[in-house]
Amino acid sequence: MGYEEFTIEGRNAVLEAYRAGRTIDKLYVQEDCQDGPVMSIKREAKKAGTLVKYVTKDRLDQMSRTGKHQGVIASAAAYTYAEVDDMLRAAEEKGEPPFLFLLDGIEDPHNLGAIIRTANLAGAHGVIIPKNRAVGLTAVVARTSAGALNYTPVAKVTNLAQTIDELKKKGLWFVCADMDGTRMYDVDMRGPIGLVIGSEGRGAGRLIKEKCDMTAAIPMKGDIDSLNASVAAGVLAYEIVRQREM
Amino acid sequence: MGYEEFTIEGRNAVLEAYRAGRTIDKLYVQEDCQDGPVMSIKREAKKAGTLVKYVTKDRLDQMSRTGKHQGVIASAAAYTYAEVDDMLRAAEEKGEPPFLFLLDGIEDPHNLGAIIRTANLAGAHGVIIPKNRAVGLTAVVARTSAGALNYTPVAKVTNLAQTIDELKKKGLWFVCADMDGTRMYDVDMRGPIGLVIGSEGRGAGRLIKEKCDMTAAIPMKGDIDSLNASVAAGVLAYEIVRQREM
Repeated sequence: MGYEEFTIEGRNAVLEAYRAGRTIDKLYVQEDCQDGPVMSIKREAKKAGTLVKYVTKDRLDQMSRTGKHQGVIASAAAYTYAEVDDMLRAAEEKGEPPFLFLLDGIEDPHNLGAIIRTANLAGAHGVIIPKNRAVGLTAVVARTSAGALNYTPVAKVTNLAQTIDELKKKGLWFVCADMDGTRMYDVDMRGPIGLVIGSEGRGAGRLIKEKCDMTAAIPMKGDIDSLNASVAAGVLAYEIVRQREM
Repeated sequence: MGYEEFTIEGRNAVLEAYRAGRTIDKLYVQEDCQDGPVMSIKREAKKAGTLVKYVTKDRLDQMSRTGKHQGVIASAAAYTYAEVDDMLRAAEEKGEPPFLFLLDGIEDPHNLGAIIRTANLAGAHGVIIPKNRAVGLTAVVARTSAGALNYTPVAKVTNLAQTIDELKKKGLWFVCADMDGTRMYDVDMRGPIGLVIGSEGRGAGRLIKEKCDMTAAIPMKGDIDSLNASVAAGVLAYEIVRQREM
């Protein structure tokens, strides 16, 4: 399964993908294209809530594998996205307090794949990612998830802060990975929980961090700044597992 | 810093690298080359303990970036390797029980980099890797270690099993990551310890596993087989940190 299977080029192909209900993660449109077919594609993109990026013809030429992009290249999801409510229902059916991962801007597909793998094995009920400034379910993510994508649902939301608010109303508490936070052993994470992991370079955004009820810090004994994002997610997830088991 | 900086091609360049004391991880020699200069390089390789691989001219042509390999391509380490004794000395100077990582065949440079990063932040005194069937300190490893390679020593040994035996005589206990092992919370890992992590696909080798005093299993609640190797190393390393802090 190569990444190219999930890149769709050309006006008809992209339009058909939309009409077939395929999930498009990102749509690249040549900035000076305004004709009828391109406008139709843009309408479909708006309906579907796709992130649209306007780029130069040179950029599209570089991205193109077929050489026939006709001003549009779509990046389709390798897997279907789930809904957040499905995750809560899964937790309820298992009789477990909900345990969700929320990723605020993970950009490296290897990290996202490894985190979905961890979510599966730590017994989390799903992973929530934002539409913007983050990698989607590409073929690389599917491969590095080592099959976890077949079991662990991933939802994509427009506004992560709003999703946190909605989930709070349903009883979830939110803990944000934060180097300057409370030592993770001293944070009670046994209840219904959303674990928020920030992006590789910058951590979680200020607004997201403020929405969280608690912060949790992994003890740092070394010389460098931070763990790899997927390792940090693993260490925090397993602190939750430990607290729930003890 | 690109990987190509660490690939040395051509007879003179490779010979000079050896004579300058540069650490060569792997030497690729064209299988039918037996002339004087190549024999000199092979003597240097033997002295330095380099892993030598004999390959066809076609393979070297494929690997070559300069087109002028003259039958030899060397892969140099991006960093200098340390000695295991230096790690024990560092632990002693800090007044801490030794805590080493031993990696039995990690092949993915991103995983090795992430593990060195984790070793640094978990307060380990060093990382030991085998010469054979494992990635060395390439430029990708250096980059993904996020600077940890400047602080955390990495030693490369010919025989990991023998190194375990020698370290046992110096008082270390060895715990092997093993899915069928004892639940990690129930293994006492507070003393002088070597944490053994197996390769991505196969786990630790049988001989290595038998050498270990204990096994430790990360609780698995999901549907798939195993965590990413660097995530598993992180979760186990932080269980050691937790036990030592409590």
